Amino acid sequence: MKKVTMLDIAKMAGVSKATVSMVLSKRDHSISEETKNKVLDLAKEMNYIPNSLARSLSTKRTGTIGIILPDITNPFFSSIARAIEDEASLLGYNVIFCNTDSEINKEEKYIKLLISKLVDGVIFIAGGESENSVIMLKNNNVPFVLVDRYIDTHEEEYGVYALNKEGVLQGIEYLYNKGNERIAFVKGPKNLELSRQRLDGYEYSMNKYGIYNKKLIFEGDFTIEGGIKATKEILKSIDEIDAIFYSNDAMALGGIKVLLKNGFKVPEDIRVLGFDNIEISEIFEPELTTVAQPIYEMGKQSCKLLIDVIKGNKVENKQIYFQTKVIVRETS
Amino acid sequence: MKKVTMLDIAKMAGVSKATVSMVLSKRDHSISEETKNKVLDLAKEMNYIPNSLARSLSTKRTGTIGIILPDITNPFFSSIARAIEDEASLLGYNVIFCNTDSEINKEEKYIKLLISKLVDGVIFIAGGESENSVIMLKNNNVPFVLVDRYIDTHEEEYGVYALNKEGVLQGIEYLYNKGNERIAFVKGPKNLELSRQRLDGYEYSMNKYGIYNKKLIFEGDFTIEGGIKATKEILKSIDEIDAIFYSNDAMALGGIKVLLKNGFKVPEDIRVLGFDNIEISEIFEPELTTVAQPIYEMGKQSCKLLIDVIKGNKVENKQIYFQTKVIVRETS
Repeated sequence: MKKVTMLDIAKMAGVSKATVSMVLSKRDHSISEETKNKVLDLAKEMNYIPNSLARSLSTKRTGTIGIILPDITNPFFSSIARAIEDEASLLGYNVIFCNTDSEINKEEKYIKLLISKLVDGVIFIAGGESENSVIMLKNNNVPFVLVDRYIDTHEEEYGVYALNKEGVLQGIEYLYNKGNERIAFVKGPKNLELSRQRLDGYEYSMNKYGIYNKKLIFEGDFTIEGGIKATKEILKSIDEIDAIFYSNDAMALGGIKVLLKNGFKVPEDIRVLGFDNIEISEIFEPELTTVAQPIYEMGKQSCKLLIDVIKGNKVENKQIYFQTKVIVRETS
Repeated sequence: MKKVTMLDIAKMAGVSKATVSMVLSKRDHSISEETKNKVLDLAKEMNYIPNSLARSLSTKRTGTIGIILPDITNPFFSSIARAIEDEASLLGYNVIFCNTDSEINKEEKYIKLLISKLVDGVIFIAGGESENSVIMLKNNNVPFVLVDRYIDTHEEEYGVYALNKEGVLQGIEYLYNKGNERIAFVKGPKNLELSRQRLDGYEYSMNKYGIYNKKLIFEGDFTIEGGIKATKEILKSIDEIDAIFYSNDAMALGGIKVLLKNGFKVPEDIRVLGFDNIEISEIFEPELTTVAQPIYEMGKQSCKLLIDVIKGNKVENKQIYFQTKVIVRETS
């Protein structure tokens, strides 16, 4: 079968191709209501699909936004993506996703792809410093909003973020007030500004309470598997521990698994704290105490912000920062 | 800032636009090595991005495949998507995702979008019967591979599936041999062929063992929340029960939560079985016994099949069916 063209519609309608073109592009003031309706009905019936780029070259709008995200299997990102999709749908926009695996090469490839497909704008959850990706977006005049992942120049760009350092301060304060002093911390990948902010929060508040010890810091990659590895490391290298603060929930879930398998009770022997508040953290047994980010709201606001920028609406704040809060459940 | 054009490169290189065009489209046999390198270097330095559609209209290939999926926040789909992405990346293809929320209107909108963006092919996880979507793909001559979700005409289309009925037979056989007779079943949404297949398997094997009772059948929507609702319903309407077989893992996890909250021990009081084997089912406490689909392999094979079809390679089997198997863990 062949793609339906304007000529096909013209033949079926018994009019010229020029007439079909005028109707479909709404330059139809000189055309009778009857012909207009006939053409529109046929276009629908025959599943006519306009060549979007040819159309975009004239209207300069595609009605589509792109989302670049590091890992679609991490519930934090799939929930943000879902929120963006819901909001975009309300505002009449389509959404396409690309998964970068936090690899800079893939990320740049997908930024190029989105630009070449002429999306109206990009929601960009960076996988690293991502300088080239940002330069490409700017050089091609494509509006974009950064979400979650800070980059060096984030104060110059539109963005929606959680206050990560403050979130960790809240978490440590909560644990300390509950009598925990030997608090291990599983930080995220070194190349992310967001990991550094959370680590900053840990170092700052542990020092404030006079209980800082460099040996209590471990590293993971924000996946369940990463939490499993880091926790095995913790159990191997530390004798006594009151609590473990994982800098995201996925790592905390993997970590709890290792603790239970090694005969530790959570929270009786070791308290556990996560960061994010993904959906499963409330279903998991024991239910995970965590520093919650307003994930859905962050996704929604980033989509609104992007569409405001695309439409040239006045934007009050180039960056939106969200507060976190400790949700106390069973692991602490 | 403005999008970099061939003219910009031509000016910088001190050559004509025609020369730049010939170099960038590899029609460069008449051009000196020096000029060629100068143009290519500049194109890279200046982040030149070809207008993909203009390019596709001549080459007829975009190097991009689209994935249509029902719910990006369901780990079953995000894992399949991830597998497709990994395989596509190996084979030199880009992937863009669209989330339909199982709404037929959204699905058709996204099929149109993918077709108009001229993807080379589509991996299509249908949200329902999806007749129109399939017709659009065919009318526009876009190769597609169905995955996971059967449709009425699936025997005519390329597709990759699990053997759902057989999977449920395996599950019931396992539970029955363990001495469970009052086995409740939480089926999926009515409009999905896959739900009917799993229900068929339940009815068939419960009848075979002479323990079928229509009152033991409940319905959920394949989400954690759906499992929570169905399980509350079960506890309200049935006095005595040996086991609950949820027709996907997400519902099983929500269900276990409700059972534990109501003072039931799993597996001591009630055995629980899921279907899928998503990553978290092994991490959850208690670990979920489930009928495993080879999720990653299904994603990989669907991507391979699609790219074979796109390239016009010979394909031995239009449909690939995967066996399931029972993975025994702690809930049974």
